[in-house]
Amino acid sequence: MTLSTRHLLGIKDLTPQDISLLLQTAQQFKEVLQRPIKKVPSLRDITIVNLFFENSTRTRISFELAEKRLSADTINFTASGSSVSKGETLLDTVNNILSMKVDMVVMRHSASGAPHFLAKHIPAAIINAGDGINEHPTQALLDALSMTEKHGSLEGLKVAIIGDIMHSRVAQSNLYLLGKMGAEVTVCGPPTLIPKHLAEAFNVRVEYNLRKALEWCDVANVLRIQLERQNQVLFSTLREYNLSYGINRRLLDSLGKDITIMHPGPINRGVELDSDVADSGQSIILQQVENGVAVRMAALYLLSNRQQA
Amino acid sequence: MTLSTRHLLGIKDLTPQDISLLLQTAQQFKEVLQRPIKKVPSLRDITIVNLFFENSTRTRISFELAEKRLSADTINFTASGSSVSKGETLLDTVNNILSMKVDMVVMRHSASGAPHFLAKHIPAAIINAGDGINEHPTQALLDALSMTEKHGSLEGLKVAIIGDIMHSRVAQSNLYLLGKMGAEVTVCGPPTLIPKHLAEAFNVRVEYNLRKALEWCDVANVLRIQLERQNQVLFSTLREYNLSYGINRRLLDSLGKDITIMHPGPINRGVELDSDVADSGQSIILQQVENGVAVRMAALYLLSNRQQA
Amino acid sequence: MTLSTRHLLGIKDLTPQDISLLLQTAQQFKEVLQRPIKKVPSLRDITIVNLFFENSTRTRISFELAEKRLSADTINFTASGSSVSKGETLLDTVNNILSMKVDMVVMRHSASGAPHFLAKHIPAAIINAGDGINEHPTQALLDALSMTEKHGSLEGLKVAIIGDIMHSRVAQSNLYLLGKMGAEVTVCGPPTLIPKHLAEAFNVRVEYNLRKALEWCDVANVLRIQLERQNQVLFSTLREYNLSYGINRRLLDSLGKDITIMHPGPINRGVELDSDVADSGQSIILQQVENGVAVRMAALYLLSNRQQA
Repeated sequence: MTLSTRHLLGIKDLTPQDISLLLQTAQQFKEVLQRPIKKVPSLRDITIVNLFFENSTRTRISFELAEKRLSADTINFTASGSSVSKGETLLDTVNNILSMKVDMVVMRHSASGAPHFLAKHIPAAIINAGDGINEHPTQALLDALSMTEKHGSLEGLKVAIIGDIMHSRVAQSNLYLLGKMGAEVTVCGPPTLIPKHLAEAFNVRVEYNLRKALEWCDVANVLRIQLERQNQVLFSTLREYNLSYGINRRLLDSLGKDITIMHPGPINRGVELDSDVADSGQSIILQQVENGVAVRMAALYLLSNRQQA
Repeated sequence: MTLSTRHLLGIKDLTPQDISLLLQTAQQFKEVLQRPIKKVPSLRDITIVNLFFENSTRTRISFELAEKRLSADTINFTASGSSVSKGETLLDTVNNILSMKVDMVVMRHSASGAPHFLAKHIPAAIINAGDGINEHPTQALLDALSMTEKHGSLEGLKVAIIGDIMHSRVAQSNLYLLGKMGAEVTVCGPPTLIPKHLAEAFNVRVEYNLRKALEWCDVANVLRIQLERQNQVLFSTLREYNLSYGINRRLLDSLGKDITIMHPGPINRGVELDSDVADSGQSIILQQVENGVAVRMAALYLLSNRQQA
Repeated sequence: MTLSTRHLLGIKDLTPQDISLLLQTAQQFKEVLQRPIKKVPSLRDITIVNLFFENSTRTRISFELAEKRLSADTINFTASGSSVSKGETLLDTVNNILSMKVDMVVMRHSASGAPHFLAKHIPAAIINAGDGINEHPTQALLDALSMTEKHGSLEGLKVAIIGDIMHSRVAQSNLYLLGKMGAEVTVCGPPTLIPKHLAEAFNVRVEYNLRKALEWCDVANVLRIQLERQNQVLFSTLREYNLSYGINRRLLDSLGKDITIMHPGPINRGVELDSDVADSGQSIILQQVENGVAVRMAALYLLSNRQQA
């Protein structure tokens, strides 16, 4: 079986069958990661360039680990210290790298749509590792794998996505994926951080009251407050945000049921999530990170020429 | 066959036989790069350190790809975040790295002559990846390979090198190589950017009129305007430079013949080269990039102990 | 034989038997490094993350070389350009990396005790590559290997540690190691840079006069003046430091005996050590660097699961 697409630019372009294939393949790779020897020869002699035009720890390392465990050769490129600062266009930078006969590109960029632009111009398979406020497809896939492991199926699962919906590519990729896979979704956050059109476009519930959203859901996917993406002051202070939308132990205990807590990281402890929630048995945050490597191995493998051959 | 030199510090030190051997070996590696499996075991277990004291995207990645395709182990060193900022001397930095039993060093440095200085003091083979305004030998070799592929031979080929001749290590390495291989050369640019002694030293034509240079040549190697290397204002504005020395479609079409366009990159689009020229069928700019990996594999291979053994 | 400890956090935690085992194993790896093929398959398929929260050239490269020569897969993490700048806690950063199923962590951090904190919380083996002003155990081990090679045994060897004792994790690790292995130690430097409690804690001689210290010792381990760690002015000027505690040729020649000169690097030439001393036959500084790779291979190997299996 193969994917219906040559790139992984966003969940928007995937069919439910694509998503299922990615999750099943990730599950198989996850079994590999439990072994003492965590490496497979699947992508031996394939060269992958990690083009990170935006800072990242976990995503870059997660992809690099996935690549090395598939036995691929990896080249890291970060924007600082590069010809980008000499004024080169994005297309020129990438075309140059591709002329060196690179097989695949993993790319993070602050501009929404940057990987889509490149996909029109270059032959190598591209995986979007996050573009602006648009999509972060491997994050939605690892979230889906984590929810499936915990709750059996996404069909009918009640998921609340909580926080800064407007600036979050994680939220948007999750909205696409959960819609395609039959989950029910509520978005919850301050009115200023939930664009009206988005809730309508995805046909999801909007809830401004955190307690009500938590009482409703099976899973709370708590977003990071991304101060670095906000150009305007959209809520008053971090302390006030915490008072209205931060999740603490007392609130969770008062719900009378066990909901699952997720977070894409890095956590602002004491802002959107208290430590005694993040580190509790209800949290599957570290499982998400673990699943990230398996999901990225699956995406790389399914998009490689090895798979298509 | 082996090279007459233990290092690749500059084209100046090579014999015509050395250059031919490098180009032939690069041609063989280029065939490897067309295969689905682009890797050869030639330098397995050899450790190469890439010492980049100056920013670079394409050259660093090109060398790293060449090394990985030869199955060498690579270590990257960049000046920022290093003990260089703690005030260590260049010789101490390199001696330390060599005491760790590194086999080869690829080095870029802003000081002209830095790799020559090291070659006197250390036993490992050194490849100069660009030193100040002196030489950039692998660039001249990849330019030569690209011209040979397009025009059959360098003997008698008419090459115009256009732009900032004075600050260009690319120009200087090309002047050495083209002279040794029997090409005819014209340098063209504003009088302030063509040092008189250089034209005399290399016995090349000087032409201040761009149209005349293009009418004469088979190949135009268009240099990047390197604003970062100019301490004085040597031409008035980028717009005026573009009006006098920028190459556009209309100018090319008016020549009544097809000349080959080359550029070492990164391109300042709209300054020295317009986009409809850079991306046209006359341009072999991306072939140059592709040939860069093959040429660097050839240099690494021919200078390694593996070859000498 | 195995180490009595699961991590290498400091020399303080090692038994004399541990130290001997590490040195013997390093000696065996050093023989490997003399061969044309310097690689062994010992840690094939093991993934090691190098977490450097502080700048370093030689230590990071030395570890990376050690890892690659053991055939491990390596991932480099440096603080700049990471989620650390997004306000993530150290434990979150490391937990995330470990959720990706990393086998070992090599860590440098500006906070004394950072690796000890992590060792309490995470399952992977940790090697301390320098923590604040506390310990730098692999440096003390490579110093010990270098002294053993030169002088046969540490038992009864007279070692003077000279310079900024107070801010030096190198000094502290050496003090622990030399004490456990039966060497005699004198610390020498300006009174402001030798904390009284330290000399008492380690039961070592204190000598403020450089000439007297040199006349007494077999080996002078000369520390780097670490301007970056001093918050107060603890000596007047570098020139004055050099006049009182810098080691020059004339002083060495006047001793009437050959002492061994060591330095952890990077050297401030003309401050704590003159060039004609650093580069002389009495200096074993570059052997120290060479031994660094062997000692790190030994530590990685002995702490890996491969060894324990």
